[in-house]
Amino acid sequence: MSFVEKTKTIVRIGGKDYTICGTESAEYIHRVALKVNSKFSELKDSNPDLNNIQLAMLAAINLSDDLTKAQDELEYVKKELDRMRAESAPNTTKFR
Amino acid sequence: MSFVEKTKTIVRIGGKDYTICGTESAEYIHRVALKVNSKFSELKDSNPDLNNIQLAMLAAINLSDDLTKAQDELEYVKKELDRMRAESAPNTTKFR
Repeated sequence: MSFVEKTKTIVRIGGKDYTICGTESAEYIHRVALKVNSKFSELKDSNPDLNNIQLAMLAAINLSDDLTKAQDELEYVKKELDRMRAESAPNTTKFR
Repeated sequence: MSFVEKTKTIVRIGGKDYTICGTESAEYIHRVALKVNSKFSELKDSNPDLNNIQLAMLAAINLSDDLTKAQDELEYVKKELDRMRAESAPNTTKFR
């Protein structure tokens, strides 16, 4: 038998509580929510005229920007690692 | 003299238009917005009872989850790359 246990965690973003269900630990979910809350607060401070839906959407866009840059960098670093591994691998050519 | 030119790009997320100002190209901003739109639509399909602010917040949380995982993986891969570079560097120890 196998099952996936779901955690219910309440996080506070922009002064409101949200119940998050996930298979990750509560600690991890808080870490993830903290990033959203920081982005939301930062955007609210610099754009006091925006409403909550605009702020949430802008927070999502900013996080997507950070994600895109991290994914691009990850792709580059992984290629570099593959290149180095191939260079340092022992030569397996067999002479018959 | 130096200045940063800002691009104004209109993107469509969850059926609504948002004007995004940024220093990146319009092509990049569309790529970033597409990720948010996919997440938003996916969440809307599986949670038809949620309103737009809840969906936008949930999209932000999901993107933050992807970002956290990408950052953790990036840190791991960078350390691995540093380790391999240190191993393959010529020995610079000097004997006096």
